[in-house]
Amino acid sequence: MVDNLDKIVNLCKTRGLIFPGSEIYDGFANTWDYGPVGISLRNNLKNLWWKKLVQTRPNSYGIDASILMNPKVWEASGHVKSFSDPKVDCKNCKNRQRADHLIEKFDKTGTIIPDNMTNEEMDAYIAEHKIKCPVCGKFDWTNVRQFKLMFETSRGTVEGEKDVVYLRPETCQGEYINFLNVQRSMRAKIPFGIAQIGKSFRNEITPGNFIFRCIEFEQMEYQWFCHPNDSEKYYNEFKNIAWDFAKECGIKEENMRFHDHDKLAFYAKSACDLQVKFPIGWQELNGVHNRSDYDLTQHSKYSGKPLNYLDPYTNERYVPYIIEYSMSPERLMLAVLCEAYDEEKLPNGDTRIVLHFEPKIAPYKVAILPLQKNLSEKATEIYRILCNEFMCDYDEAGSIGKRYRRQDEIGTPFCVTIDFETLENNTVTIRDRDSMEQIRINIDDLINYINEKVK
Amino acid sequence: MVDNLDKIVNLCKTRGLIFPGSEIYDGFANTWDYGPVGISLRNNLKNLWWKKLVQTRPNSYGIDASILMNPKVWEASGHVKSFSDPKVDCKNCKNRQRADHLIEKFDKTGTIIPDNMTNEEMDAYIAEHKIKCPVCGKFDWTNVRQFKLMFETSRGTVEGEKDVVYLRPETCQGEYINFLNVQRSMRAKIPFGIAQIGKSFRNEITPGNFIFRCIEFEQMEYQWFCHPNDSEKYYNEFKNIAWDFAKECGIKEENMRFHDHDKLAFYAKSACDLQVKFPIGWQELNGVHNRSDYDLTQHSKYSGKPLNYLDPYTNERYVPYIIEYSMSPERLMLAVLCEAYDEEKLPNGDTRIVLHFEPKIAPYKVAILPLQKNLSEKATEIYRILCNEFMCDYDEAGSIGKRYRRQDEIGTPFCVTIDFETLENNTVTIRDRDSMEQIRINIDDLINYINEKVK
Repeated sequence: MVDNLDKIVNLCKTRGLIFPGSEIYDGFANTWDYGPVGISLRNNLKNLWWKKLVQTRPNSYGIDASILMNPKVWEASGHVKSFSDPKVDCKNCKNRQRADHLIEKFDKTGTIIPDNMTNEEMDAYIAEHKIKCPVCGKFDWTNVRQFKLMFETSRGTVEGEKDVVYLRPETCQGEYINFLNVQRSMRAKIPFGIAQIGKSFRNEITPGNFIFRCIEFEQMEYQWFCHPNDSEKYYNEFKNIAWDFAKECGIKEENMRFHDHDKLAFYAKSACDLQVKFPIGWQELNGVHNRSDYDLTQHSKYSGKPLNYLDPYTNERYVPYIIEYSMSPERLMLAVLCEAYDEEKLPNGDTRIVLHFEPKIAPYKVAILPLQKNLSEKATEIYRILCNEFMCDYDEAGSIGKRYRRQDEIGTPFCVTIDFETLENNTVTIRDRDSMEQIRINIDDLINYINEKVK
Repeated sequence: MVDNLDKIVNLCKTRGLIFPGSEIYDGFANTWDYGPVGISLRNNLKNLWWKKLVQTRPNSYGIDASILMNPKVWEASGHVKSFSDPKVDCKNCKNRQRADHLIEKFDKTGTIIPDNMTNEEMDAYIAEHKIKCPVCGKFDWTNVRQFKLMFETSRGTVEGEKDVVYLRPETCQGEYINFLNVQRSMRAKIPFGIAQIGKSFRNEITPGNFIFRCIEFEQMEYQWFCHPNDSEKYYNEFKNIAWDFAKECGIKEENMRFHDHDKLAFYAKSACDLQVKFPIGWQELNGVHNRSDYDLTQHSKYSGKPLNYLDPYTNERYVPYIIEYSMSPERLMLAVLCEAYDEEKLPNGDTRIVLHFEPKIAPYKVAILPLQKNLSEKATEIYRILCNEFMCDYDEAGSIGKRYRRQDEIGTPFCVTIDFETLENNTVTIRDRDSMEQIRINIDDLINYINEKVK
């Protein structure tokens, strides 16, 4: 496991995983662009999750709702009213701070809950205790202001007119408002689940830590609609699913733990995070929540459309409870990168950097490496066969040792080398990334050999 | 092929392909939510394209750039200055019209080019010719106003401050600004390509025709960086690629044609659309453009970073030309739906609706249908085996005839029925969607049988 996030940031940039967004224009905010290696890793994680949660889990349905929705969705969800952070600016050094964080850090008694305070109460607390700016040490704050976390845009059809539209700050409302559409068109019976992977946006001013928290991010989340009496049973089932999936992606169990929420949202019956050990400490990887009937009830109220379910066997009509299992593929990718990273001393004294990805999520499965230039033709022929099955890299530049190092650094589990024996007897060597051992196999057996290890 | 778009709209809604966005709130603008069947079809189209253009095309690299970028990107691209439509409102009936379209339709000489007119010149032309409102017939217009097509939002960190950020109106700028990042990190040699699939947004006021044109849409596009002397050769290669790909998705050649652009953008050397016959007429499915060195030159100028390439063999330094191959997966999906739709008379006099998808893009590959309830256990066992390989549906409700009709309507190529013989000798029947013929095969042969037809 990596000891320092900067090592990951650097490797990601030089090896085509993740570049700073808008880099030639000196960057932009906290955005990141995924390079060829990174997008392949991220897609593999998303596809693995989709296969587990949608394709192979019975009574599961995927959807893809728009990012732009009727603004009433966000009134019903409560985001318009209360999705904001309290902020103060230091008039001396211009740095902006979250007022609630200042108060929480200052309070030694552990009894002050800024979430329950008004802006004025926070102003008064900060003034009374003369809480200083953590950057410049002065005490010279603006008043507390609420900072809206939803990006606003306008569908206004001509300059001067204005009707506010929000960039969704979470994807899950797309499942809630489509509950009946999915249930009816798929003739789904409760319990059933709706899954989605898509972009969300939050106008936060202090994001950071690479891709851990960004203003633009993907969510992949699953909403399980069930009878209220069964909700705690399924809550526990999804805790297990979350644990198993993180393990399947290569996170070691010693680096995972559950953390129950201290403060539950008022509508939640139960809520926990699956935390993972990052170089920045234990942090949330994903949440599992029993959201009760809150979401469907709110949307029924605001839309005037009854969102409930008539059980065809018992004839009971009720508003289903929802168990939510939600995470960001980017954060999962960061966890996987940190876990997979290793610096290993080689027998010759050199050090190699290697990403020990689970083969099934590795960005490239195979690299094809002709030992000499005049073997390119045969190597290309093999590349053409393998690339129909797997994401393959092809590299004929530099010494074979250097080429192995490059593949190690992007976590390619297998390197196939083509040499003069290949021309004689149709065999190649295949090198294992982790053990660095090589075996010789027939070209005709390559696909099966690799498939067995990467599927 | 379908004769009427409404039939597609209705089928999509009732069979879980596409729902109106924010429907319980009486919809929103021109947004659509993709249901379980629709998202599977759309993903299959995207994956097929990605496999063809990224995985199996040598020297190809996928990326995923942020939607939110440094606003200078859109100054360099020209969008801030000129990505807008001229509009007038009818003061009588309140309908809004595009001024350039009004003038183009009125002009019988074919010599007037509204694109070259100022707002004032359009005002004068409309006034001089007393062009009437096509809706109410009155002549009572507002002045021409430019309507910006980029959605604007603000990263402004506190109420009152404002710094404009745009939702990208096209994805391709993400490739251009990452040209050097990709080239260096992947050690790519020209010619090479960068591909991307992602969301774009355009604040248009007259979109319509179902998912043909939406304010929020995906683009999948490929940018091929090459030497200027080779650009027309590759332009023609990509015309062929575009044609073959549409064919591979099931579009018949008689419903496809190329349409060269009458007016080239000032920077373009060549440009054409691949048009497809929709129920609304011949329309663009995708574009192929020779964009010359315009994009990299603009971004070099605006960023101050030289975006060029030094050929390692010839030592020539030059700004690469770009061939662009670009389309929207949603529009492709609409084309595929229209082409696949059929109403067929059955021998018993009934009519069946069937979507004759190419098996490899069909949303579900197999439906598992136990003939009677007490065969559920065996059927579930078979479902568990098959769902590891394919997207499968499972249906035990209603007569077998009705269940076949439902699968026909979502284009499932194979239906597997489980009967009492299955319990005796481990065989099932498998029904072909198009021929409606059934054969009996051993369960152990199912995966291979289906795989051969759907891969």
